[in-house]
Amino acid sequence: MNDWLAAPCRVPDRAAADAAATRQATLTKPQGSLGRLEALAIQLAGLQAAARPRADRVHIAVFAADHGVAAEGISAFPQAVTGEMLRNFAQGGAAIAVLARELRATLEVVNLGTVNDPGEIAGVRRHVIAASTANFSTGDAMTDIQLDAALAAGVASVGSAIAAGTDIYIGGEMGIGNTTSASALACALLGETPDVLTGAGTGLDAKGVAHKTRVIARALQTHADAMTPRERLRRLGGFEIAALAGAFVAAAQRGMPVLVDGFIASVAALAAVALRPDVRPWLLFAHRSRERGHTRVLDELAAEPLLDLHLRLGEASGAAVAVPLLRLACALHGSMATFAEAGVSDA
Amino acid sequence: MNDWLAAPCRVPDRAAADAAATRQATLTKPQGSLGRLEALAIQLAGLQAAARPRADRVHIAVFAADHGVAAEGISAFPQAVTGEMLRNFAQGGAAIAVLARELRATLEVVNLGTVNDPGEIAGVRRHVIAASTANFSTGDAMTDIQLDAALAAGVASVGSAIAAGTDIYIGGEMGIGNTTSASALACALLGETPDVLTGAGTGLDAKGVAHKTRVIARALQTHADAMTPRERLRRLGGFEIAALAGAFVAAAQRGMPVLVDGFIASVAALAAVALRPDVRPWLLFAHRSRERGHTRVLDELAAEPLLDLHLRLGEASGAAVAVPLLRLACALHGSMATFAEAGVSDA
Repeated sequence: MNDWLAAPCRVPDRAAADAAATRQATLTKPQGSLGRLEALAIQLAGLQAAARPRADRVHIAVFAADHGVAAEGISAFPQAVTGEMLRNFAQGGAAIAVLARELRATLEVVNLGTVNDPGEIAGVRRHVIAASTANFSTGDAMTDIQLDAALAAGVASVGSAIAAGTDIYIGGEMGIGNTTSASALACALLGETPDVLTGAGTGLDAKGVAHKTRVIARALQTHADAMTPRERLRRLGGFEIAALAGAFVAAAQRGMPVLVDGFIASVAALAAVALRPDVRPWLLFAHRSRERGHTRVLDELAAEPLLDLHLRLGEASGAAVAVPLLRLACALHGSMATFAEAGVSDA
Repeated sequence: MNDWLAAPCRVPDRAAADAAATRQATLTKPQGSLGRLEALAIQLAGLQAAARPRADRVHIAVFAADHGVAAEGISAFPQAVTGEMLRNFAQGGAAIAVLARELRATLEVVNLGTVNDPGEIAGVRRHVIAASTANFSTGDAMTDIQLDAALAAGVASVGSAIAAGTDIYIGGEMGIGNTTSASALACALLGETPDVLTGAGTGLDAKGVAHKTRVIARALQTHADAMTPRERLRRLGGFEIAALAGAFVAAAQRGMPVLVDGFIASVAALAAVALRPDVRPWLLFAHRSRERGHTRVLDELAAEPLLDLHLRLGEASGAAVAVPLLRLACALHGSMATFAEAGVSDA
């Protein structure tokens, strides 16, 4: 069991946020005219307990894992892609690798277990739990020990990010079949029916989505007796989804702001908040995905994402794209002149 | 008169855009999963006639000018602020100065005429047309010669940007009273009533907005006989709005993509498109402003802005905040591996 989950999350620093709001009102612009960039700077000031928040040092962790439910034919891509993509992350050709380079962010790639195991790869951390989860449409996705190992992978990632002096933590995922797992888990956590939360994933047609919806409906019946967030995560989740949930809880416990990516990362956030509601203040939401269930999950979390660019890739790519907004919000907050400093007349 | 306005705009390179779309389909991601970032890269490839478009070298011009209509008490800020802000732009304390620094963009500040003339300032180009426009609620904002001088300031700005090897041109504005001018001009160009297009500007209350709306309504009656886009711009516009319109036309004529800022810049874009409809393909729209009339103007231009961050500052600040999206779209397009290069299985 996970005693660490019993530890409370940090409480954001209200005084630092208030001081940031006061400073915003003195900067040479009409009050409120920088909109959400002002709110972001104030929020980050509270989370970082800093007068001048920062988003310079960004840690991006991508957790990859395979899913037993892929046997049900619920993805447009073959399962081998998960393992193949590990190499593409490490070699710099994947979207998140390009973005991390452009943003001068740290990219940590964690192999939690793939059917097509690429073995040791420079730049990929091996934390292999199993070749894949079990097929949750017929049984439990994970054992208790596997779930703990997956959660621990997320905790360890946050620990290394904090040790490196990270300002903002981002978690991403890769795993053929993982929108199926995320949709099923979100249904269980929200008490929703699968038609509301099941989408095209990497590119299913309408027939494929209908099949995927039926697979999820069957799984929800099988696991109807899973009553706690932990049990729902264990029975319906994926290794990478559990790692993200573990990372988000650990980040909140240690006072590290998290920028949440798209649908799957948001479902992991939903699980993290279900495990510990005091995680929520530490989560910023990067973007609204095109994946069908995302808006329902965002609404449940009362999240207003920063971007709406019709992304649906995962890999933390949408969170990475939002990083410059955080950086510019911090730069404006920290470097703009006040009316007094600039000798500009106020309203 | 402006013979240069008779020159046609360049036509985007369809073959380059098609080639970019073909390349996007080979990159290691589900097709379409990078959403608007894919579309941006394809659009920029067509505008730059390049297989790998770029948004590295960004030129930001901020045109500042005062407005005679400020005498009607339509702004929350005193008119002295326009001249004061010129110094703040040059000294690096204004929002756009901070953003330009963070983005490593060129910042060009042009003084087109302020009531409170700061004189020569290092880092500010003097192109003073008059201390301000005339009060358009009782007469014409500009003479023909003044309009030509303002348009020419924009043309010159684009010329120097192109000479410096700019990838993306951004135009911004500063001028107490210029939402009043922009709203009046938009009403005239769109045949709208002022209640639809008049907003709070820098921060008017409801009573202030009602007064501003009445001032604009009166002006529209006075200038009801202005039938051409040029006449509407001359009688209701501002020096900085005309400079932006001139810059946008010149950019389109010379094949330079423009990233349009908020409400006032969008009204200048509307004027530019009214002067020459073939300007439109060269305009990308950065964000949806909180200023009341912006959505109506965007709709008229069939523009879908990239960001919606509740900004309403102007100065090109919203366009600057969108620059990283263009850069990341170009980096993804240019640097991601194809399925073949990465040895990843396709769908």
